[in-house]
Amino acid sequence: MKNDPLLEPESVAVVGASRSAGKVGHTILANLLRSRFPGAVIPVNPSAESILDLPCYASLEAYGKPVDLCIVVVPFAAVPDAVSDAVRAGAGAVIVITAGFKEVGEAGAEAERRIAEQCRAARVRLLGPNCLGVINTHRPMDASFAKKFPERGAISFISQSGALMSAILDTAAERRLGLSKLISIGNKADLDETDLLTALAGDETTRVIVGYLESIANGNAFIKAAERTASRKPVVIFKSGVTRAGVQAASSHTGSLAGADIAYGAAFKRAGVIRADTFEAMFDFSTAFAMQPLPAGNRVAVITNAGGPGIMAADAVEGAGMTMAELDRAASDALKALLPPAASVANPIDVLGDADAERYAAALKTALEDPGVDACVVLLTPQAVTEPAATAQAIADRASREKPILVSFMGGEDVGEARRLLTAAGVPDYPSPERAIASLKAMCEYNAWLRRPPRVVTRFPVNRRRVERIIRRHVRTRQWQVGEAFAKDILRAYDFTVPPGDAAATSGDAVEQAEKIGYPVAMKIMSPDIVHKSDIGGVRLNLASPEEVRDAFDLMMMRIRQAVPSASITGVYIEKMCGRGREVILGMTRDPQFGPMLMFGLGGIFVEVMKDVTFHIAPITADEAMQMLESTKSFALLKGVRGQRSVDLSAIAEALQRISQLATDFDCIAEMDINPFIVGRVGEDSVAADARIRLKETKTPSRR
Amino acid sequence: MKNDPLLEPESVAVVGASRSAGKVGHTILANLLRSRFPGAVIPVNPSAESILDLPCYASLEAYGKPVDLCIVVVPFAAVPDAVSDAVRAGAGAVIVITAGFKEVGEAGAEAERRIAEQCRAARVRLLGPNCLGVINTHRPMDASFAKKFPERGAISFISQSGALMSAILDTAAERRLGLSKLISIGNKADLDETDLLTALAGDETTRVIVGYLESIANGNAFIKAAERTASRKPVVIFKSGVTRAGVQAASSHTGSLAGADIAYGAAFKRAGVIRADTFEAMFDFSTAFAMQPLPAGNRVAVITNAGGPGIMAADAVEGAGMTMAELDRAASDALKALLPPAASVANPIDVLGDADAERYAAALKTALEDPGVDACVVLLTPQAVTEPAATAQAIADRASREKPILVSFMGGEDVGEARRLLTAAGVPDYPSPERAIASLKAMCEYNAWLRRPPRVVTRFPVNRRRVERIIRRHVRTRQWQVGEAFAKDILRAYDFTVPPGDAAATSGDAVEQAEKIGYPVAMKIMSPDIVHKSDIGGVRLNLASPEEVRDAFDLMMMRIRQAVPSASITGVYIEKMCGRGREVILGMTRDPQFGPMLMFGLGGIFVEVMKDVTFHIAPITADEAMQMLESTKSFALLKGVRGQRSVDLSAIAEALQRISQLATDFDCIAEMDINPFIVGRVGEDSVAADARIRLKETKTPSRR
Repeated sequence: MKNDPLLEPESVAVVGASRSAGKVGHTILANLLRSRFPGAVIPVNPSAESILDLPCYASLEAYGKPVDLCIVVVPFAAVPDAVSDAVRAGAGAVIVITAGFKEVGEAGAEAERRIAEQCRAARVRLLGPNCLGVINTHRPMDASFAKKFPERGAISFISQSGALMSAILDTAAERRLGLSKLISIGNKADLDETDLLTALAGDETTRVIVGYLESIANGNAFIKAAERTASRKPVVIFKSGVTRAGVQAASSHTGSLAGADIAYGAAFKRAGVIRADTFEAMFDFSTAFAMQPLPAGNRVAVITNAGGPGIMAADAVEGAGMTMAELDRAASDALKALLPPAASVANPIDVLGDADAERYAAALKTALEDPGVDACVVLLTPQAVTEPAATAQAIADRASREKPILVSFMGGEDVGEARRLLTAAGVPDYPSPERAIASLKAMCEYNAWLRRPPRVVTRFPVNRRRVERIIRRHVRTRQWQVGEAFAKDILRAYDFTVPPGDAAATSGDAVEQAEKIGYPVAMKIMSPDIVHKSDIGGVRLNLASPEEVRDAFDLMMMRIRQAVPSASITGVYIEKMCGRGREVILGMTRDPQFGPMLMFGLGGIFVEVMKDVTFHIAPITADEAMQMLESTKSFALLKGVRGQRSVDLSAIAEALQRISQLATDFDCIAEMDINPFIVGRVGEDSVAADARIRLKETKTPSRR
Repeated sequence: MKNDPLLEPESVAVVGASRSAGKVGHTILANLLRSRFPGAVIPVNPSAESILDLPCYASLEAYGKPVDLCIVVVPFAAVPDAVSDAVRAGAGAVIVITAGFKEVGEAGAEAERRIAEQCRAARVRLLGPNCLGVINTHRPMDASFAKKFPERGAISFISQSGALMSAILDTAAERRLGLSKLISIGNKADLDETDLLTALAGDETTRVIVGYLESIANGNAFIKAAERTASRKPVVIFKSGVTRAGVQAASSHTGSLAGADIAYGAAFKRAGVIRADTFEAMFDFSTAFAMQPLPAGNRVAVITNAGGPGIMAADAVEGAGMTMAELDRAASDALKALLPPAASVANPIDVLGDADAERYAAALKTALEDPGVDACVVLLTPQAVTEPAATAQAIADRASREKPILVSFMGGEDVGEARRLLTAAGVPDYPSPERAIASLKAMCEYNAWLRRPPRVVTRFPVNRRRVERIIRRHVRTRQWQVGEAFAKDILRAYDFTVPPGDAAATSGDAVEQAEKIGYPVAMKIMSPDIVHKSDIGGVRLNLASPEEVRDAFDLMMMRIRQAVPSASITGVYIEKMCGRGREVILGMTRDPQFGPMLMFGLGGIFVEVMKDVTFHIAPITADEAMQMLESTKSFALLKGVRGQRSVDLSAIAEALQRISQLATDFDCIAEMDINPFIVGRVGEDSVAADARIRLKETKTPSRR
């Protein structure tokens, strides 16, 4: 099988290679040589005979043989021809380093589209433009203009920022962190994070994939690729642009509460992607994943030669939602025998300020052997008789493939040698207990994701054609807001319980409907122009007699015509009053990247004031729907506080799954709220008491 | 004026000085010499003639002259005599390094108390026992057995952990951070954090005080000293032991929601103490405070040579509740003129990847001159043509005493020289944008505290004697739970509006009371044995007629006697039903360290499920009471959502101040809830509808 021409090429041409040191076209050539790339290196430049002692060619054609990878560093105007030449010469992959494309304006974007199409037509993969290039320490190959070539290792980086790549390389060098591949994805005209995730998923020398991303090109493809990849190896992503992301214009609660960052969070969670929130966490987490086995659970033992850091670690463990392990009898006895009488045999295990390497080793061995311990965190402060280096060696000697060991040797020079030793031996060391424990938490969460139950999405039998008809009619008349009556028809078709009700155009009709349904009834204005009915007096509840219905109708018509003279009013909707129960809000909004996102929250103030809601990417499983309920703060209210009985949780979970199915079936539904969804106790009915659906503005109803 | 004998001694004796290298008694002597302590150094050891070329004395008496500071390093058993000798010889201060005291058990604690009393009686200050000693780089003096002597600087550390001090010294050395004093406070038998805060407040060479604390000895004294100190210079405290702190047994909501860490948080907030949550934040924050002026506001300009880090910084700025400055026209024009066309003149200001030092300097100058910018954060990634060191110098040259500049040069070796240069020039540099901005946030918060309005605690005219009488009667009969009727009498005496009501022993009395008060009424069981009345059917509301009152009385008596046969029942409390309004809960619990803590929250589920409450240390000002309301998430509900009018916020604030006064007046009130406090709109009455008070179990009512 042929090697990947981008990451494992046999030959690399540098089109735009330069004799002038300092120029990018020179640096890339020099880097290829410095990295001892074992294949052919072909400088292309019509005005040079040789560069860096390599024979230089006037063109790829002049070189005559096909090349795997063609790196283009010519000026902007010459890029299209250079890419054409590369394609014509049979290059397997092209990297365009040159900037000035999409990032500077429309002309650049147009040029970028053209070169991307050219490559796509010829089935040549394109990286960039506007990128730093690619590094592969295992080939070895430095096809970038980075300043540093990293040590060989197991962590691969994908970065949307070339500049950040330079900081990543420099930071990795300082931490003595070995890397495998570094890929600067630039403007992502062709190859994007999804392609590269997939490529690295299958790369044997990559144990952890780290991504710095500012955007994601295709949300659905990304989720699928990330989920597949994460099931094979950890994927750590630092996504910036968190707070600035504007919230889309939305007419539903769900839409207005969702933001792009919530969608990224939901997508990452679904796909098992570990999210790093800071530049340092990106390194901290990936180091732990690259070096240590995953913990089977979240019970942590802490070993320390100072009380203070032990307390810090215990704070951090509990703050992170993990637990301090309770040592078993065997461990306590062993520690009592090993340690001086003043030492603590509880957890944190305080081996005391005069602990030597041997005492640390014995304590660590004991903790690792305790079946109630899933992970060990070893802390050291450099005191008078402390042996940092020997202790580091002792810890390294006890490292196993069974339980992770994370370490914080606190200080500077006094622990410098020890730190180098730990890193070399594959024991991750952190400057503070807090950072060690944050990394351990990331490992625990990834492990929990790996061991999640299989995702089975239920398909309910529904009346899909009925929904199609309703939507088609709305689209035909360009009514993008589906009023309550039709929205409830749609819900009925998806087997929601909806209160009996019907439209009424006159007060006489209204009374007739009410008599048919039975009192008390609710009356709600029907108008495509009025979305928030209750805000303008368009809702009356608990009407108990023909007189009340008639009065309410006449008053509502008069007042709303006064309040919103422009509104086209088709009548009122008469509906049976719902029974009592807990009001929750269920919703869906369609994220531009990740598609339908489901929302759950308790009704009213919990959503509007407390913003106590959760989101999940559709389609959703029964387990995931239940997790949505459980992850709201107000969940206790559903379970029942102060002796109240629980509401029917599974009814809510099922409703979320049905919305998920509806949103998946009909792309044209842009957003919807069921607010309130009134949920009773187990055995009672749960009812969609009000609903609102907004359609995407398209010409014809699309169907997936 | 005589110098401080602990921090600025003229002469230091080491009692227990040793000839054996490696022994603590040797190390301390060697450290004093290594630090070039300019005063007299007197080794005391009966079995040596000279140590480290200094004449050694058999005893302090043999030395003959008084010494300022006497350091005791003899074995545990010999400490009491050594301390006696020091006191007798007229030492100004004593440091006991020796361990084995309170930290190992009761015998040690007893010995510790004795030496502390001895020193106190002679007015000799004692540091320790079980400590590392003291360092003062300005004297200079190393009176500790630490491994390192730090560079001279403006940051002073107080540490409750001697072991952590070693990590602090080593970390400071690595960061090239200058320090002023380091004080290991050990077991705090005499001198504690409060004394040392006060000492360092007046110390001219200390610009920032940093404390690592595991406990605080005297909460009230600490708050006062910290507040006084913080008004002169920043105090940064890392308090560990956050999550483990047990919640005291409590019978009130307030008590069960408060924990020790909440009390520390409230105390720090009141005192203007900047709280660091991690070991690294302790350094990060203090570096910023030591090196840069405080920002006048929270508008931040970010300058960067790479887009990615700029986005990270903007995320962090908004996440921290600060704002990205909007550059004014002058700044935008200046930047347009200075920067290449592709550069961003918005904020973050992207000076582009090819920015040299000069371009950075020009951008920084422009941002600093913009009156809409309060602080600048400068980011750098080491790209191909970046000039880290020259850029660092250019930034340092522009540093001013007007606006703070914080820097993150991201990377390792490539920015190493630049980092050293920045630190030397007093520009704080952080490994990531996030940490720079967290430090800037700490500066903003401190500045806001410094500029807070003067604290004026209102004293309301109240009937204090009435409360004394009620409490005295309860204490006499050892009734620690004050029932609703008397609790409301107490509230009335402090001018709360309480619904009209009175006790009734029989159904006839009950009807008579109800007739007097007017229907509808509430009926509540009166029993010292029943705290949670409504849980056992001891509350009936909305009784509207004599028949209903009579029926309710008979039923309540019968049922409660069945449910709680042991309860002593004194009758029922008949009360006018309250008007409608928003239910809030007001409370007070007494923290063992910091005294009365006031609580505020919205009633019911907001407290019980959402835990949406705030605490504040009493006494409280009107401003602070209003801040308590504003800092709950549910505050919007009080202000009115969806067109509702606001409730009378000042009525709640005043009620909190009255509780504050009550709690301050009566130490013997252990905890209380007013739940619900029903607050109407402005102009309407706000009513304490139910109240519960628990007294401290003492012999006589104490009065402050």
